[in-house]
Amino acid sequence: MNRTELIDTIRKKKSFLCVGLDSDITRIPSFLKNQPNPQFRFNKEIIHHTVDVAIAYKLNTAFYEAEGIDGWSSLEKTVAEIPDSIFKIADAKRGDIGNTSKQYAKAFFEKMSFDAITVSPYMGVDSVKPFIEFEDKWIIILGVTSNKGSYDFQFQPLTSGIKLYEQVLTTAAKWGTNSNVMFVVGATHPAVFHKIRRMIPDHFLLVPGVGAQGGDLEAIIKGGKIKDEGLVINSSRSIIFAGDGADFGEKAGVQAHAIHDQMAKYFSSE
Amino acid sequence: MNRTELIDTIRKKKSFLCVGLDSDITRIPSFLKNQPNPQFRFNKEIIHHTVDVAIAYKLNTAFYEAEGIDGWSSLEKTVAEIPDSIFKIADAKRGDIGNTSKQYAKAFFEKMSFDAITVSPYMGVDSVKPFIEFEDKWIIILGVTSNKGSYDFQFQPLTSGIKLYEQVLTTAAKWGTNSNVMFVVGATHPAVFHKIRRMIPDHFLLVPGVGAQGGDLEAIIKGGKIKDEGLVINSSRSIIFAGDGADFGEKAGVQAHAIHDQMAKYFSSE
Repeated sequence: MNRTELIDTIRKKKSFLCVGLDSDITRIPSFLKNQPNPQFRFNKEIIHHTVDVAIAYKLNTAFYEAEGIDGWSSLEKTVAEIPDSIFKIADAKRGDIGNTSKQYAKAFFEKMSFDAITVSPYMGVDSVKPFIEFEDKWIIILGVTSNKGSYDFQFQPLTSGIKLYEQVLTTAAKWGTNSNVMFVVGATHPAVFHKIRRMIPDHFLLVPGVGAQGGDLEAIIKGGKIKDEGLVINSSRSIIFAGDGADFGEKAGVQAHAIHDQMAKYFSSE
Repeated sequence: MNRTELIDTIRKKKSFLCVGLDSDITRIPSFLKNQPNPQFRFNKEIIHHTVDVAIAYKLNTAFYEAEGIDGWSSLEKTVAEIPDSIFKIADAKRGDIGNTSKQYAKAFFEKMSFDAITVSPYMGVDSVKPFIEFEDKWIIILGVTSNKGSYDFQFQPLTSGIKLYEQVLTTAAKWGTNSNVMFVVGATHPAVFHKIRRMIPDHFLLVPGVGAQGGDLEAIIKGGKIKDEGLVINSSRSIIFAGDGADFGEKAGVQAHAIHDQMAKYFSSE
């Protein structure tokens, strides 16, 4: 999916909502577990009830790898289930030397039809370049993550006068364009959004941590929204595990629509 | 595998050799490709011819994920094929927020019997802690990687007077012990080994980049070897792709033994 299509989807739905399919097998309703691919069956129902307000789905690959072949198969089937008009993110946090990253790119962009993959910046440019050699595919580079450990290194001050995450944003922005590079900026750091927008005014930001991790939606949208929208805001557990009975899909839908209602206010009502 | 067992294996074999099973499907002999799990069949043959001199095998998960379910199945079968006396590394470069890392730990340490997993430090302590809550399992944290992009961030000078990779080594060493934390230090940076040994005198180092990436074996062993050995030196492509005909296994064996001959010199001949 290219930048124009992503912007169009966001405006049409008046939504920044990315639903995170962190479909932890231990938390999905037990009645789904007596058949193959329970994670896929869970996801299919969640997608059905959230697809009208979601502009993206993010699949955290860890939860599928943890289930071995059955999980990997659920991952593949889920991606195939999501309509083409919706942005599909492999939250894999990969990044390796060149020929290895090329393999990951092949896995996520060719074998499966993801639009984007999250990558760690630590290994530098050649670890992420192979991903953006695919047309209309994106890398989403970890900038500021939403967890406590983000303070260990990301906020380390460099002798150049900026912090490591700022160096990552400004350096990595040059590795591609604003049409194939995004950055992860955790919702748990709402104060940095204004600062980040001065450094990378045009890039899309993927914002995890709204909901279970406690990010502040208003501060994020006010600080991060740009002329071209520029935000993909993820919520995972608070949506997908809103219910645990036979009506888990409906309950997820209710929760997704509630978040969407808050987002829609920030779009003009033409 | 615990530290004592790893040291014993190294001494018994007079070897630091880790064989990297980067079993790229496009490079394995074509006659293997007409049956299921060609990567596993390739690996099985490589293991057979190298197991007497290898103290570890490292499986780069990217090459298996690129082949989807068949690849994932080859990964699982390969781990099961490697004897318990040998150290098994999942070169996955994972690292995510706590509950996600827990899923990866489950995938690699419970579903499969890996002894260690490589992790990126960028997200900080809570992204790697879940891995070392497993007894006798290890994390191998990226310190200095062997690729060109390592200069983008790892060598950035911090205001505290040290470089980012030095901060990573000294900070992350405290996240666990020298019995469950190792560091990746690329063979392409032989000059840093002496310096690193002053900071982390007791930790094991996983050293990729010998062979195809051009690292210098002598400088690494002289700079990195400690009383408790302390080195796991990986060679991938120069061994596993030494041949491409029916005798590819024998050719890999010859190459592995040649590297081993160079390593054995550094062990006393009691």
